Amino acid sequence: MALVSPSRRLRRTPFSSRVEAAGVKAYTTYNHMLLPTVFESVEADYHHLKNHVQVWDVAVERQVELRGPDSARLMQMLTPRDLRGMLPGQCYYVPIVDETGGMLNDPVALKLSEDRWWISIADSDLLFWVKGLAYGYRLDVLVDEPDISPLAVQGPKAEELMKLVFGDSIAAVRFFRFGWFEFEGRWLVIARSGYSKQGGFEIYVDGSDIGEPLWDALFEAGKDLNVRAGCPNGIERVEGGLLSFGNDMTRDNTPHECGLGRFCSTETAIGCVGRDALLRVAKEGPVQQIRPISIDGDIPLCDRVWPLMVGSQRVGQVTSAAKSPDFQTNVAIGMVRMTHWDAGTKLMVHTQDGPREATVQDKFWN
Amino acid sequence: MALVSPSRRLRRTPFSSRVEAAGVKAYTTYNHMLLPTVFESVEADYHHLKNHVQVWDVAVERQVELRGPDSARLMQMLTPRDLRGMLPGQCYYVPIVDETGGMLNDPVALKLSEDRWWISIADSDLLFWVKGLAYGYRLDVLVDEPDISPLAVQGPKAEELMKLVFGDSIAAVRFFRFGWFEFEGRWLVIARSGYSKQGGFEIYVDGSDIGEPLWDALFEAGKDLNVRAGCPNGIERVEGGLLSFGNDMTRDNTPHECGLGRFCSTETAIGCVGRDALLRVAKEGPVQQIRPISIDGDIPLCDRVWPLMVGSQRVGQVTSAAKSPDFQTNVAIGMVRMTHWDAGTKLMVHTQDGPREATVQDKFWN
Repeated sequence: MALVSPSRRLRRTPFSSRVEAAGVKAYTTYNHMLLPTVFESVEADYHHLKNHVQVWDVAVERQVELRGPDSARLMQMLTPRDLRGMLPGQCYYVPIVDETGGMLNDPVALKLSEDRWWISIADSDLLFWVKGLAYGYRLDVLVDEPDISPLAVQGPKAEELMKLVFGDSIAAVRFFRFGWFEFEGRWLVIARSGYSKQGGFEIYVDGSDIGEPLWDALFEAGKDLNVRAGCPNGIERVEGGLLSFGNDMTRDNTPHECGLGRFCSTETAIGCVGRDALLRVAKEGPVQQIRPISIDGDIPLCDRVWPLMVGSQRVGQVTSAAKSPDFQTNVAIGMVRMTHWDAGTKLMVHTQDGPREATVQDKFWN
Repeated sequence: MALVSPSRRLRRTPFSSRVEAAGVKAYTTYNHMLLPTVFESVEADYHHLKNHVQVWDVAVERQVELRGPDSARLMQMLTPRDLRGMLPGQCYYVPIVDETGGMLNDPVALKLSEDRWWISIADSDLLFWVKGLAYGYRLDVLVDEPDISPLAVQGPKAEELMKLVFGDSIAAVRFFRFGWFEFEGRWLVIARSGYSKQGGFEIYVDGSDIGEPLWDALFEAGKDLNVRAGCPNGIERVEGGLLSFGNDMTRDNTPHECGLGRFCSTETAIGCVGRDALLRVAKEGPVQQIRPISIDGDIPLCDRVWPLMVGSQRVGQVTSAAKSPDFQTNVAIGMVRMTHWDAGTKLMVHTQDGPREATVQDKFWN
């Protein structure tokens, strides 16, 4: 791995000083900001995440805030998911598509009220798309990136830790719901959500100034729970089939190809940009789709697209892969053409270190 | 410096294998892609750039292509620079602003023809803004990111090297003009431009497949010129006052604050988004502006905003800084309020390693 050159353009977060003190070893960048990727080692971080509780600096999940009378209309323009039944206090995973049905982002939307929404984004400047649409349609809405930095608490002991800091009522927050909880006199949105399959919460830290006090409070309270600094884990998220925008899907892909058809109500999502383009794929189904893939042998770091081949025919590609300690195989996420996407299909995957045998799986590992 | 974790999301370029073979030591990320930052050392790279010729992988300068009858109208919507006099074959530096006059990007636009433009972008997903506007205004235009990866040839011997590969006629290309030149049967746009003050060219490599052959041809031809792999240099660009979007300016800033008022014709750029917002600042002038700043003593890496102080009053900030071998000082780029922006003004700059004495300069060093 090469070094990353620091600059202001790769923004630090309200938690960066604590992340450094915790011994961060590597970063990626995400929404023009630093995202930790390794503390002890990817494998050690993985085992700890599955057994204890971790605090994650996920400030890179920037918010696009919509405020004003046209907020709900704009929000429905952005996604083929039908938002009519969504209530304040709910989180929805919302594929965002362009006019051709190509994925622009796969954020979680939070409905604060009818005229106030947060879109907690993956790695693309979704703000630009939303602002462009709002301007072009002359909507009465303010679109901005507020000073909000999510901090995730993930792992089997996450609820125990959160109770110690925010009180027992945190346990009443259901999956993909959020409530308002007080910390040092400020009311923060806390959702039961997060980019792992181990359970936990995301705290929407409103104001950079309370980032370090909140981090410190969680570590002070979590001493007996073996709390550690962590980060989205490259093994655990592939085992669990958690997709990564920019890795496993891009603007080239429809939500249906990404296996996100269940979040699309193309018929009823009136006003959604890209609806016309998606109607046909919604009806016929996609010709390629995300699949879990196991790979045999030793594999290098997956830093590029790995073609999936049958002889000289390309039938798909792998875009994320990691050696899984718990499942004794290399777990991977691939996009496979329908001719070869049935579980059990044997393929060859071409890594930068040479070809490896791969098998389409029927489900993700977790 | 920490390590950068490789993933497909941090895209490799058509030149990455050659960059690795040349011994790249560090990267930054830029438009979701890897941009080399160091080969031998920042200082050694700096001296070589100023004396010889370097080949730079600047594929991160992605193109936003506009095609179709409404291309010119859309292009003028994007920038307060008056484009009426622009001819095919010209490059224009074009500040791009949102409806509030805040900078979204500071690209170079290339006019290929009346209905075909490339926008060679700095680090933000400008594509999303352009697509949003085009959709909202129902413009008859295709907006996309083509498979074009710029390769820069920079340094005092750049023209000599380019002649060896593309023929003597390359010398006739004037600054910020481009022509079409053949390489292996393909016609490529080559402009006299680049992100250094040492002179040179940018080759718009059209098609990833010819990236390595072109790289190899340049190195083969340049053996006697001491050609090396290089990259935008963190010292040289600050000496020369070359701004960096995301570092020295953000959406918080108007072009006038960035010293780019000379590229804005707010009165005549009819149809430009943000025109209303900029009319007043164009008339009154900004209250803060980019200034060259020298800093005394040893300084750390500038990885965050450094406040510029007079006593307890904040009067600006430094956003890029480096120790200059040629000018025997630390050169820096700052944004300073008008009360303190006169050349010779003494300020204190607060780095993460403590305060340092700083002085506003009357001009950049190169």
